Amino acid sequence: MKKLLCVVLLLAALMVGTTTPSYGKVRSKNYSVKKGMIHFKEPARAKGQTSMLGFAAKPIEKVRVGIIGLGMRGKGFARRLTLIEGSEVVAICDIVQENLNKTQAIIKKAGGKPAVEYVGADTWTKLCERKDIDLVYIVTPWELHTPMAVYAMECGKHVAIEVPAAMTVEECWQLVDTSERTRQHCMMLENCIYDHFELTTLNMAQQGLFGEIIHGEGGYIHNLDIFWDRYHENWRLKFNQKHRGDVYATHGLGPICQAMNIHRGDRMTFLVSMDTDSWVGKKVAKEQLGSEEFANGDHTSTLIRTHKGKTIELQHNVYTPRPYDRLHQLTGTKGFANKYPTTGILLEGDVIKKNNVAPDHENLSSHKFLPEDVYNALMEKYRHPIQKELMEKAKKVGGHGGMDFIMDYRLIYCLNHGLPLDQDVYDAAEWSCIGELSRASIENNSMPVAIPDFTRGEWNRLKGITFAK
Amino acid sequence: MKKLLCVVLLLAALMVGTTTPSYGKVRSKNYSVKKGMIHFKEPARAKGQTSMLGFAAKPIEKVRVGIIGLGMRGKGFARRLTLIEGSEVVAICDIVQENLNKTQAIIKKAGGKPAVEYVGADTWTKLCERKDIDLVYIVTPWELHTPMAVYAMECGKHVAIEVPAAMTVEECWQLVDTSERTRQHCMMLENCIYDHFELTTLNMAQQGLFGEIIHGEGGYIHNLDIFWDRYHENWRLKFNQKHRGDVYATHGLGPICQAMNIHRGDRMTFLVSMDTDSWVGKKVAKEQLGSEEFANGDHTSTLIRTHKGKTIELQHNVYTPRPYDRLHQLTGTKGFANKYPTTGILLEGDVIKKNNVAPDHENLSSHKFLPEDVYNALMEKYRHPIQKELMEKAKKVGGHGGMDFIMDYRLIYCLNHGLPLDQDVYDAAEWSCIGELSRASIENNSMPVAIPDFTRGEWNRLKGITFAK
Repeated sequence: MKKLLCVVLLLAALMVGTTTPSYGKVRSKNYSVKKGMIHFKEPARAKGQTSMLGFAAKPIEKVRVGIIGLGMRGKGFARRLTLIEGSEVVAICDIVQENLNKTQAIIKKAGGKPAVEYVGADTWTKLCERKDIDLVYIVTPWELHTPMAVYAMECGKHVAIEVPAAMTVEECWQLVDTSERTRQHCMMLENCIYDHFELTTLNMAQQGLFGEIIHGEGGYIHNLDIFWDRYHENWRLKFNQKHRGDVYATHGLGPICQAMNIHRGDRMTFLVSMDTDSWVGKKVAKEQLGSEEFANGDHTSTLIRTHKGKTIELQHNVYTPRPYDRLHQLTGTKGFANKYPTTGILLEGDVIKKNNVAPDHENLSSHKFLPEDVYNALMEKYRHPIQKELMEKAKKVGGHGGMDFIMDYRLIYCLNHGLPLDQDVYDAAEWSCIGELSRASIENNSMPVAIPDFTRGEWNRLKGITFAK
Repeated sequence: MKKLLCVVLLLAALMVGTTTPSYGKVRSKNYSVKKGMIHFKEPARAKGQTSMLGFAAKPIEKVRVGIIGLGMRGKGFARRLTLIEGSEVVAICDIVQENLNKTQAIIKKAGGKPAVEYVGADTWTKLCERKDIDLVYIVTPWELHTPMAVYAMECGKHVAIEVPAAMTVEECWQLVDTSERTRQHCMMLENCIYDHFELTTLNMAQQGLFGEIIHGEGGYIHNLDIFWDRYHENWRLKFNQKHRGDVYATHGLGPICQAMNIHRGDRMTFLVSMDTDSWVGKKVAKEQLGSEEFANGDHTSTLIRTHKGKTIELQHNVYTPRPYDRLHQLTGTKGFANKYPTTGILLEGDVIKKNNVAPDHENLSSHKFLPEDVYNALMEKYRHPIQKELMEKAKKVGGHGGMDFIMDYRLIYCLNHGLPLDQDVYDAAEWSCIGELSRASIENNSMPVAIPDFTRGEWNRLKGITFAK
């Protein structure tokens, strides 16, 4: 796999070298310290390049998709994209022939035509270059995401990239700049924003139920002990072995950023991050990689401040025995929502009264979670329009309880109708940059790190997040 | 009340001025920045002064107590100390005669003799000077804690101080130095370490059930909306109005520090802190104090790193509508415990097997909380010896579900038997210093702040926390 990575990266660098200068892993020292705060380089926008905020492409009646990477996630995309009316899977690519065979069978079973196959490490560029493809799904190991996305956009394709979309701040800028220059959509496949509780509480937040949301928490706490070797040649463990920081921040951060209207009225300004030493990670690395070294801390915490004076906390822990937990907690001036270990919502009495969902609101305390019947009534009343529309279909098609289907459906729907996507390239950059920014903080005793403004000053132009209809 | 504060502080400063140089509120700029980290002054130990680690005083057959402050908490102490065989309440002090009357009635009802009364702002020094008192309980507004404690120790009395024991780093040093010099116990009345779940999980931690505890979370999330004006002349709101930072960290931090053996094998080295702007606090201040200004953020988060590479997270939010929550979460290499909103414990299969509490350990997942029957069996098996001994009595006497009684009982028991106390002056200083340290971080864009070593290099001498028997 190491050899493969080299080949692919080299190839990518060579082929796209003419338009984007480098894919070098500039993982450190690409920042400076001013007044006790780390600042990464923020390149000026090139001439002729314009913002992708609110961007919509021309409608595409039937979205023709190429998928690169058919491992743990790619096959599921192939199935769902075949089931969605507005899209078809035209081409598929992987380094393992068996994955191609399995995917063809899945497409067939879902009623699709056989897809063109690309097998081998150096074939993904050919897929990107096809004339009969509108959209490339990139579902490969993390470090291939940005090189592949940039190449596909250069080939005139929209891209949908698995999380995280980029592994360095420089890669984040590459995505932004390439998307802005080529006018191709660059969406990260952050599925958790489409989960039931996240969507419903987002709707509640937008209707003002929680008042002003002043603090949010998100995370990725998932004991991967039995999962590591399911990643092809253990690439995920190998990445973590080399990198401190919150390397997988997007599932926790995405839904919180939406609830807080990040780059749609507010923006993240700086962060501090702190990790533990590695205990369990080291043990796993020894067992599975035969190595004594392991960089990623067992538990990593990050605090983020926004321009409006709000805070976000992120946690990352994929090592120790704990129940699965993405936190998803919203603290507002008038209410509170918490997803794990059990969901709960608390609202102030006047909010409850207005909503007319509690038979006797006077008996409710603003110090306790709402009782089950009131909670259920509220969750039903504030079910997000997207979910209402797709619920039955999503349940049937499945994929992480339906959220994967809603994500794929929304992407295709917006492309079909020429609408802006739910997640733009600035979301992808903002949610992905946490990996390297948190690492920089940690490697400097938790020194604060300025968060780049990937919109280049336009974070306050859009007012709130909307899902186009 | 402002006038009273001035009188008392001035008096204290005058009377103790000969031995300790100042009680000035040096709240800022008493630190310097080196290599991107804030360092507070760490004064050298004075000649002839020695450590209080493991200190035990001569046994006191009947501990004669004076209580200063009979407001929201003082009356309860009077009652419990009268009910405990090894102690009696000799003298009581308050600025409000009615509080004295009520306390006398409580003492009488509990079977005690009438206490000597001190009424008025300048009378507490007289109580401290009495020859027939061994221990002074200090249950006054926060900013009076250290001046009163220092004076009482100078008068040859042990002191028990409500939380936080000190409001500035300088005050923390005053407590440490005065205790070391006068050889008087200085214990903070941190009751939450005696709560059921905290004590039981501490016992589990000490028996190694969680493996190495690498991350802990504690907090004080308590919507005080209906409580503010119960504090005499709103002193708590007024304090928060003037101070950013986690001003009330000890309830969350104490139990985590014990589970991590802080200054008994490990020590906290630095922290970073971040707060939100004030929304609710500002609104309350306007309503109750008629002021537009409010310094304390609605939600404050702090990350702490230890010498051994572990982390602690603290949260403070006494403003927004949320369920009461002290977090109390322990993340270990082999297990996990979480107290709020519902208690849960998760242990690895081999730990469960060894403990013989689950009929079929093979069916247990190290990804889910233990089922109720196994949880209950474990909680019973690991009930802390202290709690076992005192449970029935504590339930009968009451006070925050029994933890207040256990705290008072343990303090008196240790004094009766000439044993080291459960909490020493270094705990008081370490847990209290967070207030000013977090403020310094916040006021400097979350810059890291070195945490003083109040043991002056001896944090690794004792091996683990013990409750003397």
